[in-house]
Amino acid sequence: MKEVMAIIQLNKMEATKDALDVIGIGSFTAYKVSGRGKQKGLQIPHPTPLDETDEKRMKYIPKRMISVMVEDEFVPAVVAVITKVNRTGNYGDGRIFVIPVEESVRIRTGESGSVAIS
Amino acid sequence: MKEVMAIIQLNKMEATKDALDVIGIGSFTAYKVSGRGKQKGLQIPHPTPLDETDEKRMKYIPKRMISVMVEDEFVPAVVAVITKVNRTGNYGDGRIFVIPVEESVRIRTGESGSVAIS
Amino acid sequence: MKEVMAIIQLNKMEATKDALDVIGIGSFTAYKVSGRGKQKGLQIPHPTPLDETDEKRMKYIPKRMISVMVEDEFVPAVVAVITKVNRTGNYGDGRIFVIPVEESVRIRTGESGSVAIS
Repeated sequence: MKEVMAIIQLNKMEATKDALDVIGIGSFTAYKVSGRGKQKGLQIPHPTPLDETDEKRMKYIPKRMISVMVEDEFVPAVVAVITKVNRTGNYGDGRIFVIPVEESVRIRTGESGSVAIS
Repeated sequence: MKEVMAIIQLNKMEATKDALDVIGIGSFTAYKVSGRGKQKGLQIPHPTPLDETDEKRMKYIPKRMISVMVEDEFVPAVVAVITKVNRTGNYGDGRIFVIPVEESVRIRTGESGSVAIS
Repeated sequence: MKEVMAIIQLNKMEATKDALDVIGIGSFTAYKVSGRGKQKGLQIPHPTPLDETDEKRMKYIPKRMISVMVEDEFVPAVVAVITKVNRTGNYGDGRIFVIPVEESVRIRTGESGSVAIS
């Protein structure tokens, strides 16, 4: 099992969710994060600065991190779908990372393994 | 060492913290997240929507993600305790994932390994 | 490739960012989190409590989690820099964890591997 983490633009959340639904991935977790990458010179004001210094420097960019847990064989499809939906060709489109997950448990039933992530 | 990540209901934070304390786990990190899982049809309004589209669709559910770093031998106990405290039998009870951690460092002392997570 | 996760004090974000810049690490993701560790007895009021119970107990401490994705050979430098900048010698200085990353993709270009994290 793997965790597919994607740091994406705020305005791509809905399209990403819909695209994941199309390939049968209905479950994910979303985090509000601040990104700093190749966009760092853009000096876009941060609507909710992390701290006062941020306000001055304005170099953090609000992003969403979504985390999708999938069986290994679905990783290529999930990565492809997220890439397709989020690619505009501009800096700031985001990045995807794949992290190993050793175990999963659905709390409601106690089931573990692949049933716990469906 | 492992990271035990649990996505749980907001109203279970306190009980989860207390239960972890009982088994000697006093350290963890909590994240505010939005979940989308088998509850997605519930259409519960999201108190702090991730974006405007969320307000219309109301399909994200606020959750807590807690991350506990533990030595391998404590993983079963941590998973069992989190499962026990959080199980109501209803959809939305949450899920637990175990992720490998290769190294840990306590910044205050520079200690690494198991001492850094106690 | 590895994810270096560091849970640090709020007031160390800027210095940490600057120090990472110095060693050529310009990209990272920042999360607002709540920590509970050896400081738990300090009873510091939480400015944005996770829930009502938090307000009463006041035992969570607002922190930042920063996540830096780097090639394996840079992990020691990143860990050393984060440790140096964040160490005050007091409880609450934070902790660093290193997690394996199996794959990375830059969405804008579709590049994968080390080019995707630069």
